[in-house]
This record gives sequence, C-alpha cells and structure tokens, in this order.
Amino acid sequence: MDASDIRILSAGTALPGPAVDNATLARRFNMEPLWEQWIDVFIGTATRHLAVDLATGDIRSSLAELGELAARRALDGAGLQPSDVDVIVLGTATPDNLMPATVNLVADRLGVNHLPTYQLQSGCAGAVQALDVARQMLLGDRHSTALVIAGDVCAKHFDLTTDLKSLPPAELVNVVLFGDGAGAAVLTNEDVPGSTAIRHVINELCGLGRSPGQILEWYGLADRNSASSPVKEDYKAIEESVPTMAAEILESLLKATGWARADVDYIMPPQLSGKMTERIMAGLDLPHAAEVSCVAETGNTGNALPFLQLERVLSKMADGDRAVCVAVESSKWIKGGFALEHL
Amino acid sequence: MDASDIRILSAGTALPGPAVDNATLARRFNMEPLWEQWIDVFIGTATRHLAVDLATGDIRSSLAELGELAARRALDGAGLQPSDVDVIVLGTATPDNLMPATVNLVADRLGVNHLPTYQLQSGCAGAVQALDVARQMLLGDRHSTALVIAGDVCAKHFDLTTDLKSLPPAELVNVVLFGDGAGAAVLTNEDVPGSTAIRHVINELCGLGRSPGQILEWYGLADRNSASSPVKEDYKAIEESVPTMAAEILESLLKATGWARADVDYIMPPQLSGKMTERIMAGLDLPHAAEVSCVAETGNTGNALPFLQLERVLSKMADGDRAVCVAVESSKWIKGGFALEHL
Repeated sequence: MDASDIRILSAGTALPGPAVDNATLARRFNMEPLWEQWIDVFIGTATRHLAVDLATGDIRSSLAELGELAARRALDGAGLQPSDVDVIVLGTATPDNLMPATVNLVADRLGVNHLPTYQLQSGCAGAVQALDVARQMLLGDRHSTALVIAGDVCAKHFDLTTDLKSLPPAELVNVVLFGDGAGAAVLTNEDVPGSTAIRHVINELCGLGRSPGQILEWYGLADRNSASSPVKEDYKAIEESVPTMAAEILESLLKATGWARADVDYIMPPQLSGKMTERIMAGLDLPHAAEVSCVAETGNTGNALPFLQLERVLSKMADGDRAVCVAVESSKWIKGGFALEHL
Repeated sequence: MDASDIRILSAGTALPGPAVDNATLARRFNMEPLWEQWIDVFIGTATRHLAVDLATGDIRSSLAELGELAARRALDGAGLQPSDVDVIVLGTATPDNLMPATVNLVADRLGVNHLPTYQLQSGCAGAVQALDVARQMLLGDRHSTALVIAGDVCAKHFDLTTDLKSLPPAELVNVVLFGDGAGAAVLTNEDVPGSTAIRHVINELCGLGRSPGQILEWYGLADRNSASSPVKEDYKAIEESVPTMAAEILESLLKATGWARADVDYIMPPQLSGKMTERIMAGLDLPHAAEVSCVAETGNTGNALPFLQLERVLSKMADGDRAVCVAVESSKWIKGGFALEHL
C-alpha cells in the first residue's frame, strides 16, 4: 500500500462553552473599550471558546472531555463505532496530566481497550504530526482504522487573578489570542469510494540555531513558586517568519503532489490570529483556492486548529477537489502541512 | 520490507551526577538510619542519579542535555554522525517544557535540521512506544536511520524543602524509588550483518474502566498554588497487577515470535523497584534467560529504563541470541515489550 492511498473518512470538533467576545473579556478584566478596538485592529480575533468559566473560575471542560466529544462526532461522521478503531493518536501541547497520557483517558471515555495509543507533545504542528503517525501506522498490516485527535486546553495557564493593566502588550496579547478546543479525524487504509485521500504530509523541523518563537513552561512541586512567566512569545520573529515558512510549505506540497497553484480548490492557512492569517493568505498566491479559516471565531486553538479547518473543508469537497493545509509551529520552527484529494 | 527486519545498531545512556546512596538521602532529609533499612528491605534500591544537586539545589542536567549525551553515545556505538539520522522519536513523561518539545532541543544540540521529529508523552511504556513509532517510520520509503531517545528528569517535582518525617509511607517512597536518566538507540532498515533485529513490539492499552495506578500532574500559572499533591500512586494495585501483566506480555511476545521459553537468552524485566523486579522475575519462569536489571543502581528512571537495560544486553548478545524486554505502565495500565534477535 502506498502512503498516498490512506483516506480521511470524516472529521469532528468540540469547543467548550459559549463564544466569548472581546467586550466580555474587557468587562471581566476591567479593561477599557479602547482595548477592544486594539484587539480588532491588531489581532482580528472576535470570539473564542474557553474551558474556564469567566464568571465562576470553574473549569468546564478537560482536554479528555473535548477529545472524546470531537472523537465521537468524527466517528459518527464516518458511520463507525469506537470499537471499530484499532489505533489512536493524539497531539497536544497541554495534556490534562503528565501521566496518564490524556489519549488513554479519551480511550477510557470511548470505552475502547486492547489497542495501541500514542500521544504527541507538540504545538501547532501537532495535528499534522498525529495525522502523519496514524498514516504510517495504517501502512503496515497491523491496523485498518485510526482515530486521530488533537486539541489544547489552556485553563491551567489562564489566570483570572491577573491584573491585565499591569501587563506589557507582549503578554496582554496571550489573553485574547488563544482559545480552547479539540478536533478529531478518522483514517482508513481501505479504498472507500467518495472519501478523501491524504496525498502528502510535511513535518519538518527547521529551527537549527534559531531561538524559540514560543516557550510554554510547566511547573512541578519544586519550582511552582518560580517568578518567571510560563509563556514567552517572540511576536516579531513570528510575524517575520511565519508568512515565509507558509509559502515554502505550500511550494513543497505542490512539488510533492505535482499540482499547479491553479489546481488547489481549498486552502487552510495557519491561524495564529485573524490579522496574521490575512497577511499569510496575501503571500500564498493561489488564484482559485477558497480560504478556509476559523480563527476569527475560535481564536488560536493550537493543535485543534487544522481539524477545525478540516471539518469545514470535508463538508465542501466534491469529486476531484484538492485542498492544502499549512501549519507552522513557531516554538522551535516546524513546517507542517498536508495535501488532500477527494476521490 | 517486513517490520521484523528493522535493526537496532546500538544503544547509549546518560545518568546525571554521581550515584546517590540511601545514607546520603537520609542525611540530606534528616531521616534516621532506620529509614535506610526500610529502603533496603521494602524497596531494594541502593543508589540513583539525580538531576538536582542535593547539596545546593541547583539543577545540574535537563532532559535535553541527558538526551543529547545518550544520543551521541548511541551514535558513536553505531559509528554514525548526527547528520546520518533522518527521523528522531523521543519518549518522556517529564519534558523540560511543554513547548518547544524537548526532542527539538535535543535536535538543536545535535546540530541536525530539516527532518521530522516526534515526542511521545508517556510513562514507563514510552521507550517501547518510541521504538515502535520509529520502526513504523522506517518501514516506508521516507527514512533509513532513526534515532530513538527516552528519559525522565524529575527535578521539577523533587522538592528539597519537603519535611519527609511528615509524609505518609505512600509519598515517602517516591523520594527513594525514582532516578533521572536518558537512553537512546539507533535503528536502521538496512540489512546490517552482526546487528540485532526487532522481531516484535507490543504496545497495548488495557486499562478500560480501571483507576490509574499512577498520576503525575503539572501546574500552570493559574493552578500552581493548588494544595493537591502532584504525584499519586496506588502501590497496592501496582504490586498486584504488574507481575501478572509482565507474565502476559512475555506470553504474547513468545506467541508472536514462535519462540519457546527455553529459547530466551536474556530477559529485561520491569524495573519499578529492586524488590518488585525480584517478584516479577520469579513469575516469568524462563529457565535459561539471564536477567538484565539496573534498578538497584539507577532507581526507576521511567522512560530511560528499557534503554539502560538494552545497552547492557546489546553488549552481550552473540549470533542467534534472543532477548525479551517487558515494560508495564501502571498510569493507565499499558502492556509494553519487544523481542530481539542477534543476526
């Protein structure tokens, strides 16, 4: 079996709670209306969904819960039961615990057992990596149906006691940029008519000698009173590098598939922020491709994002349609992406 | 290419600092000599290596540093350079950061770029999972040489300010049970004479409906002042289940390879503690197999353990020798293991 024969049967997603708009965030953190305008102009993200209830501080969803819900929706879309799955791969930057791996809590919720599970620690490229590992697993004779899950829940880092007025813009942006969510997809190595083939996947570390664009720390018992901020981002480096890397990923996917720019019907660009996605799209130069974006409504949901886009694309693709997803992880600079063709 | 043709060329390991004996631990935490006897009788672990300097509290090694060192030693053993590697897979329960993934920091230290990297979040079964993913990657036509790394550094959870006298035995045991370290192996899909073939790998979640035997939490900015202990272990469940699961893993490996019990020349049993390993060995009933254990000297080093054992086994195996590794992850109950044959 050739890797380009592996099919995606369906995708499903799950977002916690209601959409939270910028006015609600501004009220919660006692910020001025001017802050809302700053978000609109510089970030371009109108709403996001959060696993923490802003009014009470209660955590309303774990990654395991969102992962289960997305998985059930993807399985429903494929007309399959959890028991039809014979391998599970999950990608996340924010597991519920270090042990057990969240993928195994999702498996428990789905009621499945006696199968291999893998959980990839990764940022924005994690959904692509999980898809890639599942695809490789389906190439052997061990498995026929893979469940791929990806998502992030930032509740442990979303501190409601923070005084936003005291934060520099570089830290303030994190409050509005991100959202929580999970996505899932069902893959098969069977030749299902009317399904979508994964023609190529790119997953390439290219950060040698470069400083990380994003750092996300975790604390243990010994260092939890450390004064250092657990989230660091180099927005200047991200703004400079991501559009260029996105264009290079597109070129690599076109070269690997032999497709021309005019052959691409749908493009799923990186979703760091609404404004950044606009800039990236301007540089991709795809004459006929419809943009499939969700960042304005969901915020940057990390590993969930490519599957949020994938769910929208799969619902639109007709025979012969071609779609390209481009994902960039700025933590240590990873190029990710995949090319799909509906058969 | 058949999965049972993938070869291990070499293994390498790295342990931080000098061996720390029980007397040194007792002195550091103001514990009585009686405590040392309790460790000897009930745990059976004489020494371990720690990433934290007990005298100063300084962190002397990160997982990225130990992973690099183990990787370089494994590459040296195979007569290869870092640039010969075309895919890296790392397994750990305790990454240095959530982002960037530690595997990418190791890649940077090794000076490699433009290759795919994967990091598996996992407990004791992680070394097996990493070996498994690397093996699947080598079955396609994308890669020929894989670097597999696994390890754990518990420094973030090793709180030197803890008053051990106030801890119940169930928490006290964590101070003496674990050690830090990393291991690595080089895999190839080439038919190298005098190398060791991976005949079979087992990675099976089997925890449906069972409570976790181990829980390891991480804290973020919002929940770091939570009063709950980040480490929970159900020793009774572990003592009851692990020997039985180990025997089942051995049976599965023998069945998959067609080997008889008498055919096994080396056995690498689970290394939860010196005493637990003794009990597990008694139940495995392998008449001719030499036990390869390291837990008495290194403590339970989590993901590093199978590679610490592997390094010892590879140095002993001669033509036709067969070795079996058995690993149990009690977090959500995973059966892991692999069968090797020297060609």
